Amino acid sequence: MSVASSPLSPTLALACQLIERPSVTPLDAGCQALMIDRLETLGFAVERMRVEDVDNFWATHGREGPVLCFAGHTDVVPTGPVQAWQTPPFQARIDEQGMLCGRGAADMKGSLAAMLVAVERFVGEYPDHKGVIAWLITSDEEGPALHGTQAVVERLRARGERLDWCIVGEPSSTALVGDIVKNGRRGSLGGLLTVRGVQGHVAYPHLAKNPIHLAAPALAELAAEHWDDGNDFFPPTSFQVSNLNAGTGATNVIPGELQALFNFRFSTESTVDGLKARVAAILDRHGLDYQVDWTLSGLPFLTEPGELLDAVSASIRSVTGRDTLPSTSGGTSDGRFIATLGTQVVELGPVNATIHQVNERVLASDLDLLTDIYYQTLVRLLA
Amino acid sequence: MSVASSPLSPTLALACQLIERPSVTPLDAGCQALMIDRLETLGFAVERMRVEDVDNFWATHGREGPVLCFAGHTDVVPTGPVQAWQTPPFQARIDEQGMLCGRGAADMKGSLAAMLVAVERFVGEYPDHKGVIAWLITSDEEGPALHGTQAVVERLRARGERLDWCIVGEPSSTALVGDIVKNGRRGSLGGLLTVRGVQGHVAYPHLAKNPIHLAAPALAELAAEHWDDGNDFFPPTSFQVSNLNAGTGATNVIPGELQALFNFRFSTESTVDGLKARVAAILDRHGLDYQVDWTLSGLPFLTEPGELLDAVSASIRSVTGRDTLPSTSGGTSDGRFIATLGTQVVELGPVNATIHQVNERVLASDLDLLTDIYYQTLVRLLA
Repeated sequence: MSVASSPLSPTLALACQLIERPSVTPLDAGCQALMIDRLETLGFAVERMRVEDVDNFWATHGREGPVLCFAGHTDVVPTGPVQAWQTPPFQARIDEQGMLCGRGAADMKGSLAAMLVAVERFVGEYPDHKGVIAWLITSDEEGPALHGTQAVVERLRARGERLDWCIVGEPSSTALVGDIVKNGRRGSLGGLLTVRGVQGHVAYPHLAKNPIHLAAPALAELAAEHWDDGNDFFPPTSFQVSNLNAGTGATNVIPGELQALFNFRFSTESTVDGLKARVAAILDRHGLDYQVDWTLSGLPFLTEPGELLDAVSASIRSVTGRDTLPSTSGGTSDGRFIATLGTQVVELGPVNATIHQVNERVLASDLDLLTDIYYQTLVRLLA
Repeated sequence: MSVASSPLSPTLALACQLIERPSVTPLDAGCQALMIDRLETLGFAVERMRVEDVDNFWATHGREGPVLCFAGHTDVVPTGPVQAWQTPPFQARIDEQGMLCGRGAADMKGSLAAMLVAVERFVGEYPDHKGVIAWLITSDEEGPALHGTQAVVERLRARGERLDWCIVGEPSSTALVGDIVKNGRRGSLGGLLTVRGVQGHVAYPHLAKNPIHLAAPALAELAAEHWDDGNDFFPPTSFQVSNLNAGTGATNVIPGELQALFNFRFSTESTVDGLKARVAAILDRHGLDYQVDWTLSGLPFLTEPGELLDAVSASIRSVTGRDTLPSTSGGTSDGRFIATLGTQVVELGPVNATIHQVNERVLASDLDLLTDIYYQTLVRLLA
């Protein structure tokens, strides 16, 4: 660990310890043991839930009343080309600009450290707090995400665990810490469209049926379709074809098949069945011989203004002086699994400008502000 | 050589000798030496024209008057999986159904043998025939076709050689020998269309420009376009996209670029410049940021009814009793190069059902009929 001149805050010291554990998905590399050790010292009951090759844990402090859960992941994405990093990715460092550098600094070991230090401070000051403080931590958020939060949530659901509020430490901020919190996410529905034609020679098109020619007007119509208007919380549903492939490579062969991989990011104004039916109607109207293999990655969820969002917003304003903007834009997160328990879910973490990139970094002082925000949220909800 | 019980006709004996020379493009494997030897015996003046790695020859018999040229190629396409052949592909065999089997039997060593035996018979009977009999033979028709007929034609053009009529031995027949002759071919114009967008994440489509979505309506319009009506000799011009590719493979990335490989087979009612301009107009109308890289494989050519087509048709009727159908359908051939000399060009050869396939074969007796047809055509034009 390279350390700047001044002594590190407790949050930064812990963040550095976590960064130096090279926990590329699905590895945890000892991050959870470090967290569990400190939580057990605080009096938390900790339940390790290893599923297949994924380490997870669930921890609680307190007996009854509303449950506030801190959720997140100890795994990080791969480093990419190590030589492109200014310093080794798993060697935490605070640079001359005051940036904490290292893989996971922003996504999301910085948040984990801030949450843990906030909880330590809160439990130290309010040992007999109201309600329950919980933790749901996984090491498989950046990967397949099958044996992580989703699996833990299913166990919690099976035994009827109460989970009122959840703060996910995902890096939600865009320019300044706390400027954005995510109070929901769009759903994600994927499809693999296969359009069948009849292969043949380009010199004899009457003996073939070109699936590219057959599919083009249908794809044009799908691309132009207005799926919904969105609502106060969600932008309109969007449809994007990410991959389109047809052809044998030969210039004189009409291919027998076309494949298009597409994805909906959908608002709560559309449903999975509704989108599937509308796609089918368009493809049917064009008389295509086709098949769609659907993959639902996540239903949309929404946390409307209420206790959790109010507490988080007030804490951000108190610590930073700024009004946060709740947003449902962006990609998916584990929040989608937790929300299925009926939980109010908010994602709140540091600035996401460098996540998944080389030289991932976050303003070190932001992690201390984030610690204060989490702490104040605890005070507002459970003191 | 496996031989059926009865003795082989001169045509079949020569066809077998040619098949047993494994002349996969650009190899000639001694086929031309065999032909040249027999032509020189007949009194032909033979001019070898090796260009790069390709053997070609030009041969003439006679001094003045109209020139009738026999054209063809000694090279053959690869065998494909040898184990799929009933007998080795370069081991000529006449099977129980009377089929001559072997690579090149139909395309086009059978025709070469028939032409040569017809010429031998004709010159033997009419040593002082009218006009000139010529040969234009290459070993690079099935390959790049750069150093074969095209190169020879350029030399003939440079020295002002006269070439009135040309019979190309391509397998033109579809069910019965002589049922179809090709009196022209459509042009072939290829294009590689690149449509540029802006790459991005599917969750943030407003920050990207999806080239699939942008291109789809333009491709639909190109596919639906009516290019021309064709004419008495040509079917309407056809447009086919053979390959279409876009996408990074990832399901959550909007690609930055789309590529479509397309091909026109065009009649004499359309021009290269006209087709290019109409494609550009459609792409421009859709506001695309695009590029098209064009490849002209061949201009259309047409031999209208006249001396050559009349002589060929009358000979087919006389030998087989059937009326031949002149056609311009199908792929390209070396006839497109020869026609640029102002030559009347007809393709006439055996049934093409098995060309380029494993177990290529042709009815042995058809090659004797073909010999008679070539012979009678010689009589009609030069006796």
